[in-house]
Amino acid sequence: MEPSIALHTDKYQINMMYAHWKMGTHNRRAVFEMYFRKLPFGNGYAVFAGLQRIVDYILELRFSEEELVYLQQQEERYDPAFIDELRRFRFSGSIDAVPEGTLVFPNEPLVRVEGRIMEAQFVETAILNMANYQTLIATKASRIKQVAGDDTLLEFGTRRAQEMDAAVWGARAAYVAGFDATSNMRAGLLFGIPAKGTHAHAWVQAHDSELEAFERYAEALPDGVTLLVDTYDTLGSGVPHAIEVARQLRAKGKEMQAIRLDSGDLAVLSKEARRMLDESGFPNVRIVASNDLDEHIMMNLKAQGAAINTWGVGTQLITAADQPSLGGVYKLAAIDRGKGYEPVIKLSGNLDKVTNPAAKSVHRLIDPDTGYALGDYMALREEDVSGGKALKRIDPAHPYVNSVLSRYEAVPLLRSVFRDGKLVAPLPNLEEIRSYHRAQLALFRQPYLRKLHPEPYPVSFSKQLWQLKTEMIQRVQGPAEE
Amino acid sequence: MEPSIALHTDKYQINMMYAHWKMGTHNRRAVFEMYFRKLPFGNGYAVFAGLQRIVDYILELRFSEEELVYLQQQEERYDPAFIDELRRFRFSGSIDAVPEGTLVFPNEPLVRVEGRIMEAQFVETAILNMANYQTLIATKASRIKQVAGDDTLLEFGTRRAQEMDAAVWGARAAYVAGFDATSNMRAGLLFGIPAKGTHAHAWVQAHDSELEAFERYAEALPDGVTLLVDTYDTLGSGVPHAIEVARQLRAKGKEMQAIRLDSGDLAVLSKEARRMLDESGFPNVRIVASNDLDEHIMMNLKAQGAAINTWGVGTQLITAADQPSLGGVYKLAAIDRGKGYEPVIKLSGNLDKVTNPAAKSVHRLIDPDTGYALGDYMALREEDVSGGKALKRIDPAHPYVNSVLSRYEAVPLLRSVFRDGKLVAPLPNLEEIRSYHRAQLALFRQPYLRKLHPEPYPVSFSKQLWQLKTEMIQRVQGPAEE
Repeated sequence: MEPSIALHTDKYQINMMYAHWKMGTHNRRAVFEMYFRKLPFGNGYAVFAGLQRIVDYILELRFSEEELVYLQQQEERYDPAFIDELRRFRFSGSIDAVPEGTLVFPNEPLVRVEGRIMEAQFVETAILNMANYQTLIATKASRIKQVAGDDTLLEFGTRRAQEMDAAVWGARAAYVAGFDATSNMRAGLLFGIPAKGTHAHAWVQAHDSELEAFERYAEALPDGVTLLVDTYDTLGSGVPHAIEVARQLRAKGKEMQAIRLDSGDLAVLSKEARRMLDESGFPNVRIVASNDLDEHIMMNLKAQGAAINTWGVGTQLITAADQPSLGGVYKLAAIDRGKGYEPVIKLSGNLDKVTNPAAKSVHRLIDPDTGYALGDYMALREEDVSGGKALKRIDPAHPYVNSVLSRYEAVPLLRSVFRDGKLVAPLPNLEEIRSYHRAQLALFRQPYLRKLHPEPYPVSFSKQLWQLKTEMIQRVQGPAEE
Repeated sequence: MEPSIALHTDKYQINMMYAHWKMGTHNRRAVFEMYFRKLPFGNGYAVFAGLQRIVDYILELRFSEEELVYLQQQEERYDPAFIDELRRFRFSGSIDAVPEGTLVFPNEPLVRVEGRIMEAQFVETAILNMANYQTLIATKASRIKQVAGDDTLLEFGTRRAQEMDAAVWGARAAYVAGFDATSNMRAGLLFGIPAKGTHAHAWVQAHDSELEAFERYAEALPDGVTLLVDTYDTLGSGVPHAIEVARQLRAKGKEMQAIRLDSGDLAVLSKEARRMLDESGFPNVRIVASNDLDEHIMMNLKAQGAAINTWGVGTQLITAADQPSLGGVYKLAAIDRGKGYEPVIKLSGNLDKVTNPAAKSVHRLIDPDTGYALGDYMALREEDVSGGKALKRIDPAHPYVNSVLSRYEAVPLLRSVFRDGKLVAPLPNLEEIRSYHRAQLALFRQPYLRKLHPEPYPVSFSKQLWQLKTEMIQRVQGPAEE
């Protein structure tokens, strides 16, 4: 973490903290919830990620003297006693969140923050920045993983990532969703993700000939040699030279690991390279492909029978190129103005943007016979969903559609992370997150997971939540708010 | 800078360093050039940015013990003497680069790195990561600035930025290209960019009524009050309440600064809000608009006569949503294998990807009579372009089109930044960069700058560069490379 992490925020957060403090309302308790409204990429689900980063941020959250001096210089001329308040500032609230790797859906609370309004409001910007990006990339990576199946997936995006943090946290998000390794060494160091790398065209060009370049590379790094074969002429020189080096290695008791294709018609070239390798006695040499790949191109290559078994995916993944932001939001759900929590709603001309009032829970309902997820269920936090009683489920988009479910197991998605400023328990490690994510995928029937036109997974409301929302809309829209 | 900055790289850079070191070729001199092949967003130019970040990186570049331990654990089992070599590693090469804020074009060298091949190769990933992102965002911001004209532009993207670094470096890139302020406090602290902020819907919802919320906000922050008027009903309650608070402020000798619209039909709402404010005696209250704005929506709003004079631009800018990566590359141009520099070319099945050989210069040719740029001119580094002699200009896409220019001033775009590992001179500060950028824009005739279907700005080759390239292509394509 860099020194000035507390100012990783929008100025209006500071101004609202200040105004609350100035008016004496800063210690009112409030509940905020983070969620997104729309799935990215036309996918049927998103993969939640970013929680470790948020936890690190919350644990480190304090204002440095440098930051306090900077705040004193602002045109707002904050009261010096407020600066002292910030000097003492620590996050003392509670956070519940969905575990990383969970499959999540629109409008479900993913992070719920409860505390003094001045702190629960303040952490909005950082939480959104971190959860939006990692969830977006994990979701994109999950789509790619679905196409790749058991092939090896390498994250290669650093040079096109949107700056340094995106490179490492994007590599981590991809690993959560099933990638096998990254080219980014810092991500390897920080998170323990396996780091992989071969050589660039420049290695070949720095030598008198391609063959000399290959021989020297194999001599320097004899174990796990992967040779990039497209610098001059893939099938005319690259693959034959690679085969020659593979023979030299075998004579020394080593086996070449792979060749890499980075341009041209990857379907044709990989099939022909495969044939040449096989006929030369190297059926185990793998073929790595790269060059602006995404799940669509990969699916096309597979449909053409491309003989690729390792995929290097860069730009399209690390920037989520077809939709580079998730659009997650963080909204006030309830506030205590002295008489206990009151639910809060935000209306909007755009009906999709009307918020869901009150602190909420979300449960995944599982069919005990099949083990498959039947749908998710949003309710008021205080409602008991754990018991085996019949649940009335209301579809919020089509409230005339409702059903009663009697036989189910209800798994709460929100888990306690901070309680009164204290971390409740260490988060799972990255390998545990990966295996939890695989278990999550296994809960869902294929129609919900498919890449194109997935079946919408049902997320329903409890009767109480639905009634509260409709009553509050009526109340605000009723007598003019004067 | 965080501790592990040296590993902000792809593993293949380390492997190539190692292979060169192992083979004894690591001290060969080499020249690499960074450039991009295609302008983003259909724009007619790009705005180069990222150099300050690159300079900071180069100055800090050394391997920490933690990083060295990590490297020793890799499956490559690097020779311990190599780890010692890395322990002593400092960048000792030379870097020339285009100043930040310069208008730049495809295939022009923007950063030229010369040094021992093990260091010049190694810095590729970080240079691309930094220059790609900031140049992309500065270019996007420049498009938005062209539409905004003299209106105020606020960068509001942090919550949707691709993680923490993107938020601050994106804010900086936007400021380079003419934005006036950012909401990001860290960007304010790190770079001195003015930080601006108002309040969120949550402020209003945390109070019993909108009017009470506005009054309290104005009481806490009486100077420069901006009120968000769309929480409930923009024209029905928001604007009337804001006017009431403006009156209260005026009674205390203060003037309200602005209202902010964040949803709905911004054209209709802004015009009506303007009328209400004017009729109430507040013609100087500004109208701020936000809500997923980009240059296209802003142009549409202006065409509809929207009464907006401050624009808050977030997601679309900070992610460069319509094209979230620049695609800059870093290619070997020349290498000294003991007999002086030899030019290097990379062929490709895709002819746009064939590189331009040799260390090159790029000059901007200015018409001394009008002061306008006539075109850019790429030549071999050793060619003398400064003199007043006639220049033969070859269009590399249409080499049968060539022209001779006699009357011009030639301004070299690449400036010396590092010489033998030493920073030659401090870089310009951010205000100097902004003013240099405005001067750059003034060099270009409007057809090159327009947002839609700009006139392609000519970037031509010298005869020597063109001949070298064509000869090298012939040579490689000629007798089979066996």
